[in-house]
Amino acid sequence: MTTHRAPVPSLSAGERRLEGAIAHYLARVLRLRAGDTFVAFDPATGFEADATTVSAEGAAILVRCSALRPGSRAHSPAAIMWIQGLAKGDKCDAIVRDATELGVTRIVVAVTRRSIVKLDRARRETRQARWARVAQEAARQCGRSDAPIIDPPSPWADALSLAHNAGARFCLWEQATVPLAPGLFEALAKRSSLAFACGPEGGLEQGEAALAESQGWSLVSLGALALRTETVAAAVLGAVRVWSAMFERAL
Amino acid sequence: MTTHRAPVPSLSAGERRLEGAIAHYLARVLRLRAGDTFVAFDPATGFEADATTVSAEGAAILVRCSALRPGSRAHSPAAIMWIQGLAKGDKCDAIVRDATELGVTRIVVAVTRRSIVKLDRARRETRQARWARVAQEAARQCGRSDAPIIDPPSPWADALSLAHNAGARFCLWEQATVPLAPGLFEALAKRSSLAFACGPEGGLEQGEAALAESQGWSLVSLGALALRTETVAAAVLGAVRVWSAMFERAL
Repeated sequence: MTTHRAPVPSLSAGERRLEGAIAHYLARVLRLRAGDTFVAFDPATGFEADATTVSAEGAAILVRCSALRPGSRAHSPAAIMWIQGLAKGDKCDAIVRDATELGVTRIVVAVTRRSIVKLDRARRETRQARWARVAQEAARQCGRSDAPIIDPPSPWADALSLAHNAGARFCLWEQATVPLAPGLFEALAKRSSLAFACGPEGGLEQGEAALAESQGWSLVSLGALALRTETVAAAVLGAVRVWSAMFERAL
Repeated sequence: MTTHRAPVPSLSAGERRLEGAIAHYLARVLRLRAGDTFVAFDPATGFEADATTVSAEGAAILVRCSALRPGSRAHSPAAIMWIQGLAKGDKCDAIVRDATELGVTRIVVAVTRRSIVKLDRARRETRQARWARVAQEAARQCGRSDAPIIDPPSPWADALSLAHNAGARFCLWEQATVPLAPGLFEALAKRSSLAFACGPEGGLEQGEAALAESQGWSLVSLGALALRTETVAAAVLGAVRVWSAMFERAL
């Protein structure tokens, strides 16, 4: 039997009254009753604590938390940023979910020239909040105690500049001729922090790829067969996950 | 502008009258009119031909095909079989789609002890046909001219035995302690044919993993964080895709 895990914002030791979505999750989804225990984690800090349900009544639940300890963070080689071209429908939800499971630490959705969806300010905020919820839920399900940071949706140029500190930056582009593997191999061996950028379903325009290249990103290809944009994150981050284990052993 | 690609079963040179789903796809989805050209491919053989629309009327379409040539098959290092534990809802559809894009050559859905869905004979046939359609559609979209073979859903033991010829066999199991990377690294360097097996959403039972191991499969882990079963194929096959490019260059 697995121990339940639940996100508790601003986690601290002692008694705490929870309401809203978290209370619903604990009381209705996990069906916790007085005396039941779970692991509470703070999605913002990655700290966790043993928690006991004191009482569950109506819409509120009272819990008692032990002293905080560092949680089992993502076993990533280093920080990983994923910049995703804004795609239609719920594709970005699926990408946020996959990327969270596979250990990214920061996700930026970038509005590109071929992004079909238009986001005014209100919708930008709504989407950011939704993706943050998706990330926290995915983090909980996979046993990760820190959820990735979800930035507000940004123009392509601004999104790229957020990664200027990353040790290795790869922009996935259909028209690139260099494969991802050699550069990624080197970056994993050095344990560099990583940043990846990927276009929406229609791909990146030449000028957008050129902008990335001019800022030091490597334009790289995943091979001759086209991937849907919603498959790229899982494929690339899967490659990082699998091959990180190789270097953790080697070093 | 991309050349349209469409699957034409039993492809041959010369004139051909097409009806049903393929005619619908050509006439309604691609909106081909008399004189328009496309590339026709045979999903069973991987051969392709240049095709010209002669006429499109009502539910039928008449096309003329050039001499056949070998198509641009998946750029995989070798044959890749994916055995997937039968999962709920449309998860297997999504897995077939991802696996096809990422180059698998054969997919077997395995009924395991924790598979929630029950399939009688009629439903086994319906599902197999549906997954074959999903695979052909995904092959078309990613520019692959051969679709993977879709076997009938089989019991776990039978599915495992279908891979007895594979050069390297990996059973992905949460409780495994050995990482996938070292064995996969060796297999890719040797250009072995590959087989992977993965449980449904509830995972594999101890006995099922033990059975695989007794038949020569390596029980391997993808790390401490749990992945949903529908993420595993994309992550593992992404790792194969990315790292195959490394070995193609090196050898």
